[in-house]
Amino acid sequence: MSDLVGKTCEACRIGAPQASKQEVDSFMKKLSNWHLINSDGINQIMRTFDFPNFVDALSFTNSIGEISEAEGHHPAILTEWGKVTITWWSHKIEGLHVNDFIMAAKSDQVFGE
Amino acid sequence: MSDLVGKTCEACRIGAPQASKQEVDSFMKKLSNWHLINSDGINQIMRTFDFPNFVDALSFTNSIGEISEAEGHHPAILTEWGKVTITWWSHKIEGLHVNDFIMAAKSDQVFGE
Repeated sequence: MSDLVGKTCEACRIGAPQASKQEVDSFMKKLSNWHLINSDGINQIMRTFDFPNFVDALSFTNSIGEISEAEGHHPAILTEWGKVTITWWSHKIEGLHVNDFIMAAKSDQVFGE
Repeated sequence: MSDLVGKTCEACRIGAPQASKQEVDSFMKKLSNWHLINSDGINQIMRTFDFPNFVDALSFTNSIGEISEAEGHHPAILTEWGKVTITWWSHKIEGLHVNDFIMAAKSDQVFGE
């Protein structure tokens, strides 16, 4: 995963290429706790992180918010009592860009992995 | 809405009665921006709040977190760039309790309404 964590997001423009199937397969092997999903035709990656209470969950949400602002790339963050579900995808290309896998790896790092 | 905002959540135990249809209808008239939804057989109330950026959305998420902790009743909070979607329901009764309408009114108050 370290090669993903070390990268920063590149600007993602409308029309930029989506990650290829080969790239997705390669990245997903490194992100073993993440799942590929398809929501309304848009490929996304999702992971739920568990916490012992609401306050710790919300704290993680804020940490993810910080790295999102720093990289200029924002996920959907579902905060509930004892869990946070993060979903990454690239709005401009309505699918998965390498940025999303970089941010998934950074999310794991924030969680302490 | 003021009569709901002024209330505090009562303890909700397993087996407590769900809000009656008459109560739900009455509360929803006061919560005009909220929608009744049913997710996997569980009645819930949901509203999306709009913001000009991610930071303001996350700030609102934290404010909702504060009132949730204060009342001991927690929603699902979906934070995205420019919007926060709040969903209230009572896990213990798998449906809607008066607490949820109280918290929806308090959420509107936090938003500045």
